[in-house]
Amino acid sequence: MKAVVFDEELKLVNDYEKPVPQKGEALVRVTLAGICNTDYEITKGYMGYKGILGHEAVGIVEEINDEDKSLLGKRVVAEISYGCKKPECPYCAEKLYRHCPERHTLGIFHKDGVFAQYFTMPLEVLFEVPENVPDEQAVFVEPLAAACEITEQLHIKPFEKVVILGDGKLGLITALTLNAQNIDVLLVGKHQNKLDIAKAQGVETVLLSDLKVEKKYDVVVEATGSISGFETALALTKPRGVLVLKSTVAASKEFNLAPIVIDEITVLGSRCGQFPAALRLLKSGKVDFSPLISGRYKADDALEAFEKNKEKDTIKILLDFN
Amino acid sequence: MKAVVFDEELKLVNDYEKPVPQKGEALVRVTLAGICNTDYEITKGYMGYKGILGHEAVGIVEEINDEDKSLLGKRVVAEISYGCKKPECPYCAEKLYRHCPERHTLGIFHKDGVFAQYFTMPLEVLFEVPENVPDEQAVFVEPLAAACEITEQLHIKPFEKVVILGDGKLGLITALTLNAQNIDVLLVGKHQNKLDIAKAQGVETVLLSDLKVEKKYDVVVEATGSISGFETALALTKPRGVLVLKSTVAASKEFNLAPIVIDEITVLGSRCGQFPAALRLLKSGKVDFSPLISGRYKADDALEAFEKNKEKDTIKILLDFN
Repeated sequence: MKAVVFDEELKLVNDYEKPVPQKGEALVRVTLAGICNTDYEITKGYMGYKGILGHEAVGIVEEINDEDKSLLGKRVVAEISYGCKKPECPYCAEKLYRHCPERHTLGIFHKDGVFAQYFTMPLEVLFEVPENVPDEQAVFVEPLAAACEITEQLHIKPFEKVVILGDGKLGLITALTLNAQNIDVLLVGKHQNKLDIAKAQGVETVLLSDLKVEKKYDVVVEATGSISGFETALALTKPRGVLVLKSTVAASKEFNLAPIVIDEITVLGSRCGQFPAALRLLKSGKVDFSPLISGRYKADDALEAFEKNKEKDTIKILLDFN
Repeated sequence: MKAVVFDEELKLVNDYEKPVPQKGEALVRVTLAGICNTDYEITKGYMGYKGILGHEAVGIVEEINDEDKSLLGKRVVAEISYGCKKPECPYCAEKLYRHCPERHTLGIFHKDGVFAQYFTMPLEVLFEVPENVPDEQAVFVEPLAAACEITEQLHIKPFEKVVILGDGKLGLITALTLNAQNIDVLLVGKHQNKLDIAKAQGVETVLLSDLKVEKKYDVVVEATGSISGFETALALTKPRGVLVLKSTVAASKEFNLAPIVIDEITVLGSRCGQFPAALRLLKSGKVDFSPLISGRYKADDALEAFEKNKEKDTIKILLDFN
């Protein structure tokens, strides 16, 4: 089958072996996939991963190796990790497969990804896409679930002020997601054209250069992926407030931890999320991610798509496997 | 009056002006005080503070400028900060005076400290010391309250595993305090003699060199004040666990924030605490801080006491103002 592989270098392979679903797994034929910054980081060495890239996709279940055939022929999305499912694993018990010590993660850790004509995943991490949600929206379910993860971890009260730093994919999706949950959100970024995407859907926005930096926000979401973003986030979080750390960029820089102690700030690491809440939000039609699509490429043009993804003004690039 | 003052240099002043209690304040005659690492940090420039040092003391109320004279003649301790008390201040409303934007903090910020024969503080931050608690224990109430602050901020469940890094004052007091609340505590340090103090009161202890570093603790308290301590703390916190940051040391070093996100760790900044819970614990007799006293000096020998405080094996140095 056709597959986008990273192995020392990024390449398009036309004769990659088609995967065979193991017991409890389904074989999914990919229709549409999305490039994430993590994919790009992997091509620079992140996680030392080698294999098929990608963890954002929509597809059709073509085969199931299990008695339960209920998903056969259905349009589905897959959470990115599956776990050991051992009875003694507290993470698997809570469906927090991403924290299972024996996890496998699509296109990132010990598991071929979704930038291919087919992938396999266990049934418990596959979810049917509601009929009214087109592929172009469903393909955003993974970053959307990551945004929903914030309210899974943290009780944001209706009167609390939330500021989101960063108008890239992560910041935009987080802003649209929290705003759709009637949370008081302000999105801060450096690009008026990107801010306008959120503004068009009712999100309050401001250019970083126009933001008054003061410790007045109950919740600050760091979605810039830069240390300077983290420092600004700290300067915006009020005493006893929460700074949600969303980006996994592996950058390092000197900085002082004392303000976290002095202001008794909570720094909350937040990663991916479970899909049901995200699919519910997509089904409701309260969020529209189509303005985030900067380009759509045929799988044969995957390398070109990755080049486009690097460009500064690009938001989301889709890969068409149909 | 006699006072230990920092102003470019540390000095003992014999003719410092005796303070006059303002409306709502009491005048307290100091009997015993304790040197904290923050005092030492201030002599190196921390907070840019100049004035009488010190924020840990016990004393007798000699004068009250208020209709409420109930504390007159009583033995008291003082929380280190007082706030604006304006009706619109959310921090003062919750008695979190340390976060009031207009706060004053004894010997640290806009307020003369307690290393003197007298100090003044508003009545709402003065607390009577229970009769059965001697000065030598009561003088520990401030760091004890800082340890109690952890359970004010965080619900530690009875089955959760807590590890405390650092066998200095902060680590020892935190270990004794949490242990006295029947929490499952392990204290880790580099000094067997210091660990033994906690061990004698029932705390489980281990030398850092003997600790198996694995991500298995629900709560990790960083009390070493070093970045390497913070890194070890991260390596001990299990996914979705809490790393309590206790030290305000202003050191900086490069390090990677990604593990906080990947493991969805909560980093909880934790500072000082309110006194009632600390006084209740002292009254109960469940903690004994006397083994932490490394020396007791007359106020006239304060400079010598500060020198002793710098020594590696020193835990707590007391200053006698009687």
